[in-house]
Amino acid sequence: MSGSPLLDALVDALRCLPGVGPKSAQRMALHVLERDREGARRLGLVLGEAVERIGHCRICRTLTEHDVCGICSDASRDPRSLCVVETPADVLAIDQATGFRGRYHVLLGQLSPLDGIGPEELGLDQLEQRLDAGEIDELILAMGTTVEGEVTAHYIHELARQRGIRSTRIAHGVPLGGDLEFVDRGTLSHAFASRRDY
Amino acid sequence: MSGSPLLDALVDALRCLPGVGPKSAQRMALHVLERDREGARRLGLVLGEAVERIGHCRICRTLTEHDVCGICSDASRDPRSLCVVETPADVLAIDQATGFRGRYHVLLGQLSPLDGIGPEELGLDQLEQRLDAGEIDELILAMGTTVEGEVTAHYIHELARQRGIRSTRIAHGVPLGGDLEFVDRGTLSHAFASRRDY
Repeated sequence: MSGSPLLDALVDALRCLPGVGPKSAQRMALHVLERDREGARRLGLVLGEAVERIGHCRICRTLTEHDVCGICSDASRDPRSLCVVETPADVLAIDQATGFRGRYHVLLGQLSPLDGIGPEELGLDQLEQRLDAGEIDELILAMGTTVEGEVTAHYIHELARQRGIRSTRIAHGVPLGGDLEFVDRGTLSHAFASRRDY
Repeated sequence: MSGSPLLDALVDALRCLPGVGPKSAQRMALHVLERDREGARRLGLVLGEAVERIGHCRICRTLTEHDVCGICSDASRDPRSLCVVETPADVLAIDQATGFRGRYHVLLGQLSPLDGIGPEELGLDQLEQRLDAGEIDELILAMGTTVEGEVTAHYIHELARQRGIRSTRIAHGVPLGGDLEFVDRGTLSHAFASRRDY
């Protein structure tokens, strides 16, 4: 294509990044080669190291290069409050947007028996052990509202209920600053049904 | 930020790519770690190799991992027609969009004496040698229409004129399918002044 097989290979390899099509990949490859070789060299090294060393936290299953992640090993965080999310991205989103200072459990998926994803694949045995340890007094369910998300939330709510632990669910409704007319019907109907006293 | 310094380093390193801000960088890092480690490993290796091995063609100065690029060493391309462009991206754009089967000279910049960019920095001594070799009979000027681009085009046109070589300039005007009302005034005025018999 470009007369340089290595440049073509770089353009092709960049397409593993989400949202990067052939045009952006070409622009990225030419940009780093012409203007930021130092950045590209560093990115190459860090990518290799990250893929090699980053795994999942033994306790909460989020991404970390250590046996136990920075959040689980942070003694200043409240061990009584545990938030269950689907992905490591959700951990970052909640930590960056809210003042939550408890800990997490990352499912890395949703219950979906037909796809072979049962409680074990979501680390729910580990979660049960943490609930059994007796330190937790609120389990916050922060998974999505797909059918699988609802099933997963219900299943985990039952685990908590059996142990007499309170479980809460984050609110779903109209986004802040959202115009009602642009909100989808499902969300609006849910928000209407979940109305609270003013 | 994420409780994993290596993940933070990866997010930071991804920002060397053009158009990638903190949010996209985070999304890219999580995506490759969760879903495409093989792609990320490959990207890391190719980036390192590309930065190490890709340099500039000895003849035309485009990007290549060889001494002479694929285009310059392609005997099927017409040595009589030489197109002068500013960047390796322009070479790809022209080769992909047009049927041009001649060769290129890549300036890697524009004449800008105040910034210390003179004829030597643009490889114009090499270009003169190619013109002197006597094989070229059309020099196509395909640089931009900024002030520096115009100055550069004029300078190179003079080099060709002194040797009795015809130089042409690619047409500037209203883009195909472009609505007149959305075309900027400079382009429209140029297109109007450059009108041709129907």
